[in-house]
Amino acid sequence: MPIIDFRIRPPYEGFLNTVMYAGAERRDRITRAIGLEPSPAAQAQSVPMLIEEMDAAGIDMGVVVGRNSGNLGSVENATVKEFCDAHPGRFIPVASIDPIKRRKAVEEIRTAVASGFRAVNIEPGGASPPLHTDDRRLYPIYAFCEDHNVPVILMTGGNAGPDLSYTAPDRLDRVLGDFPGLKIVSSHGNWPWVHQILHVAFRRPNLYLSPDYLLANMPGMDDYVKAADTWLSDRFLFASAFPFAPVKGYLDWFRSLPIRPESFERILYRNAADLLGLSEVEAATGPMLRVSNAGC
Amino acid sequence: MPIIDFRIRPPYEGFLNTVMYAGAERRDRITRAIGLEPSPAAQAQSVPMLIEEMDAAGIDMGVVVGRNSGNLGSVENATVKEFCDAHPGRFIPVASIDPIKRRKAVEEIRTAVASGFRAVNIEPGGASPPLHTDDRRLYPIYAFCEDHNVPVILMTGGNAGPDLSYTAPDRLDRVLGDFPGLKIVSSHGNWPWVHQILHVAFRRPNLYLSPDYLLANMPGMDDYVKAADTWLSDRFLFASAFPFAPVKGYLDWFRSLPIRPESFERILYRNAADLLGLSEVEAATGPMLRVSNAGC
Amino acid sequence: MPIIDFRIRPPYEGFLNTVMYAGAERRDRITRAIGLEPSPAAQAQSVPMLIEEMDAAGIDMGVVVGRNSGNLGSVENATVKEFCDAHPGRFIPVASIDPIKRRKAVEEIRTAVASGFRAVNIEPGGASPPLHTDDRRLYPIYAFCEDHNVPVILMTGGNAGPDLSYTAPDRLDRVLGDFPGLKIVSSHGNWPWVHQILHVAFRRPNLYLSPDYLLANMPGMDDYVKAADTWLSDRFLFASAFPFAPVKGYLDWFRSLPIRPESFERILYRNAADLLGLSEVEAATGPMLRVSNAGC
Repeated sequence: MPIIDFRIRPPYEGFLNTVMYAGAERRDRITRAIGLEPSPAAQAQSVPMLIEEMDAAGIDMGVVVGRNSGNLGSVENATVKEFCDAHPGRFIPVASIDPIKRRKAVEEIRTAVASGFRAVNIEPGGASPPLHTDDRRLYPIYAFCEDHNVPVILMTGGNAGPDLSYTAPDRLDRVLGDFPGLKIVSSHGNWPWVHQILHVAFRRPNLYLSPDYLLANMPGMDDYVKAADTWLSDRFLFASAFPFAPVKGYLDWFRSLPIRPESFERILYRNAADLLGLSEVEAATGPMLRVSNAGC
Repeated sequence: MPIIDFRIRPPYEGFLNTVMYAGAERRDRITRAIGLEPSPAAQAQSVPMLIEEMDAAGIDMGVVVGRNSGNLGSVENATVKEFCDAHPGRFIPVASIDPIKRRKAVEEIRTAVASGFRAVNIEPGGASPPLHTDDRRLYPIYAFCEDHNVPVILMTGGNAGPDLSYTAPDRLDRVLGDFPGLKIVSSHGNWPWVHQILHVAFRRPNLYLSPDYLLANMPGMDDYVKAADTWLSDRFLFASAFPFAPVKGYLDWFRSLPIRPESFERILYRNAADLLGLSEVEAATGPMLRVSNAGC
Repeated sequence: MPIIDFRIRPPYEGFLNTVMYAGAERRDRITRAIGLEPSPAAQAQSVPMLIEEMDAAGIDMGVVVGRNSGNLGSVENATVKEFCDAHPGRFIPVASIDPIKRRKAVEEIRTAVASGFRAVNIEPGGASPPLHTDDRRLYPIYAFCEDHNVPVILMTGGNAGPDLSYTAPDRLDRVLGDFPGLKIVSSHGNWPWVHQILHVAFRRPNLYLSPDYLLANMPGMDDYVKAADTWLSDRFLFASAFPFAPVKGYLDWFRSLPIRPESFERILYRNAADLLGLSEVEAATGPMLRVSNAGC
């Protein structure tokens, strides 16, 4: 079974200046708090070690999500593209934009998609000033993405903004209702609003959940897992959020969850491939994903 | 042990035009998502089959809750009454009103109660425009019901309104505090605000919870069940929300929950009978509920 | 292992006029609702019986938290001090203030700390008018406490105010972010916002949780316990909230939870001692806490 890790930030160029690498001590403390051991690849800031770890885990592809997020740091889309191009078929690029500058954002999304990016990542709570997910200033961007069939990955879980209100699930619920044709991935799965976001997912077929490292041993995880194995199995995505969790250690832990093989197949691969439009590419290149140039 | 199903919408006349019957495919998808099989009575839109299913399940009475709920559809109170009158002792009518028209609403409640309706159902989030449960426009209606001892069934869980804020438990908490003499049933049990509504129920003795079909296999259900078996056992109500769940299949599932017999007795019968004032009727007609004309 | 109960209100003088003693019937109903038997010491309003119960339970010290809380009643700081002074080494005084009168509040905190009080207790939702925890009127008080290293115990869980919004965790999240040097104990652990407050605790190292009696058999307790035994073990505090729970009965129940001995040591003693600055006193007086005059 092929496996896609839906959120990887490699120790490469601009990524190294963001807080997740620059603040390594804090990051490793978080990793240990969720019961995992930090990845040596993260600690050594080594791309080859990351790829080795992916190989050892059997992870075929990683979705490389950049960042444009004020205090948390930013990574140029060009850097993301460069990295993915250097590892054909192994990494899939997702563009990031500054949501405050809506005209520029839309232009960047247009360019990015044309050059092979498969989705756009928005971190509204990290903008300056921070935006809530249903801030009207985001609506022109959402509208463009809906009109052009571009999936949006929203960081709206965990430390998404200055305070807990930036992950409030009623806000995302409104966005999903206002743009029914827009596919939105809630990165960090809107944690800690576990019960609430599962309700939103139950009523909104355009919501995908990717609780990633905040699933591991955190409050409410059993409810996420139960949904992932039943009615949400076709909209749940596996992601380590590397370097916060080790790609292999997290996958090992994830596979120990009480989820049936047919659901695992969807969560670990099929849902991500369908969402990012990888299926046709695959069909063209055969099952050996790594030799393809899918999405990069 | 007699059993009352606190929320049944029969496949009869005006009910067939509401979304729950007109959108059968969506409805059956929901039923399967919660792990149950759709009722043949719902699919065939057959009242005799519904009654057969109730007989097979051992359900003595059903509370027939109409609807006055904008997009979700509406059912005339006269239709509800007609249906209950046609099945004496088997169904108990609950009136519905349009909360936007407060004078008319109060008049309708007065008339309905005088003619045998046992409670009033309000779906504020389904009104046009949608109202939150603590909207001041509802207060004259709440006041009337408190003054005249009419229990109110509020649909304020699940898809109660345009977004998640329509089930916000702090709003209901305020209403319960402002009208301490008003008995309110939270239909759908304010799900997904599981922890929060259980707290509100813990502090407000005038709140009853009826999570109905959204209990089945949904996030947080264990906490509902634990409360139902302990401190909340005298204010928890059993309801299938037919046609969303099959009356028999849901009851079978419900009885498999870790709830003690003495709590089951209250939840499946006593609480509903007390709340709707059925006890005196019973006393007059003996235990054979079905031959009585209780409440219809 | 020494044990500190972080919230005790003895049946002494002014305490007897507050609702928790004056409304004994309601209180005992709450105690039974959480699955415990009321303390005979609470029912008999006997200080000697309370101390006996502490002895029997092996509880070395109790943190005596006064109250200045409108409808719930008030207790003079002088009464709290008098009580602690009468039982040297056994009880630790915490001052209470009326947050509406900010100048007087700051003056009282200054005086209290100088005379041996170890922390200040604020019940914003009980003030007249009730305040939310992030009400700007509280900010001068928070600022003073941060500047003078005075821990604040906030009652912001359970029935903390007129409605559920008074325990809203996003409000506390903002306060913790605005005063990163201020140590705040959430008394009642912000219950029922279990998932949300655990997230806030995960991101804010200056938050301590003390769910006390609302932990017992209440919704979400398993998530509190799991955190208490892992990443939150150094910021979780044991408290009975006597007279709402019996000190011994609650401790017996608490010790049956799946928490490892090393975490218990922190939760039952070390965290409280560190937070209240008892360590030095101990070092000076040796392990026989009861003969010391720690903090009183």
